[in-house]
Amino acid sequence: MIPMRYVLRQCNDQEKIDSFLRQAKVGLLGLADDHQPYVVPLNFVWWNDAIYFHGAEEGRKNKIMYENPGVCFTVCAEYGTIADPVPAKTDTAYMSVMLFGKASPVADLDEATGALQAMLDKYVPGYYNQPLAKQHVNKYRSSYGSAAVVYRIKPDEITAKENPLNPESAFYPGRRVGDD
Amino acid sequence: MIPMRYVLRQCNDQEKIDSFLRQAKVGLLGLADDHQPYVVPLNFVWWNDAIYFHGAEEGRKNKIMYENPGVCFTVCAEYGTIADPVPAKTDTAYMSVMLFGKASPVADLDEATGALQAMLDKYVPGYYNQPLAKQHVNKYRSSYGSAAVVYRIKPDEITAKENPLNPESAFYPGRRVGDD
Repeated sequence: MIPMRYVLRQCNDQEKIDSFLRQAKVGLLGLADDHQPYVVPLNFVWWNDAIYFHGAEEGRKNKIMYENPGVCFTVCAEYGTIADPVPAKTDTAYMSVMLFGKASPVADLDEATGALQAMLDKYVPGYYNQPLAKQHVNKYRSSYGSAAVVYRIKPDEITAKENPLNPESAFYPGRRVGDD
Repeated sequence: MIPMRYVLRQCNDQEKIDSFLRQAKVGLLGLADDHQPYVVPLNFVWWNDAIYFHGAEEGRKNKIMYENPGVCFTVCAEYGTIADPVPAKTDTAYMSVMLFGKASPVADLDEATGALQAMLDKYVPGYYNQPLAKQHVNKYRSSYGSAAVVYRIKPDEITAKENPLNPESAFYPGRRVGDD
């Protein structure tokens, strides 16, 4: 945690990145409202090599993306703290993926329905008896006063970093420097 | 998960917000590199009503913040998925806090040491036998080729939202719509 230059570990394993994106529950959508950053947590699905999410047509993020569709979508997981007798070497085990690209509203009803079905399959697998009906999706897309938009981010660039946890150096309550 | 306008719950309980920020392990720092958003996960500490974190002097985020110190720092936690027979009412339980302000490098060695001590107290409580020495901090701030900077975000604005989990409606593997 002490200031030092971290040697960050680049992860280039596309299968690992895909698997990480498929199971992560929350992603952070970063927008720039002119020069003011805005970061909002979202449910999402990684489907057909794109990030899909949805939002209210009248919400702030929709307004910002309309003016500036360039986004950064970041997904991260924290696996524990690494203790070290040298304070500057205190560290965190994690994996993180950053995707850069433009967010576009999905106009096609089949694509929107497919993306939302993929979200349901991810968040409530096996819960429903039947697939999502296109009419259901269309209704919510056009509801008066509550219309919603499905977005797609087809990434132009993906970067990933990881710092795996070595169980032996993991901090646990009660661990003391004298033990190491 | 289906598009609909969410009625988001504003949280104005400052004590709850403080407690949430004190215990959260990861925060997402949102920057704008001109109009390109950049969102990076970080360890941090909420100390003296400010967010403190550190980074390499030569890193990309340092460069961006030098040009544009306006940031959005978002912290979120996910508490489970809420299942509902109506697909559009599938939802997530969460708490999230967004802080807006300017990120400034901390020049004062006492303040930098205090912030880093607060980070150690948060991430490895009780691990060290003695408090962090100012000389140790100073050394890492000036290390050749690996100098690091401690930053402070004194927020101009904080917004928080929450959607608590009702245990009865939480999704669990095997739950089916016919059971509800």
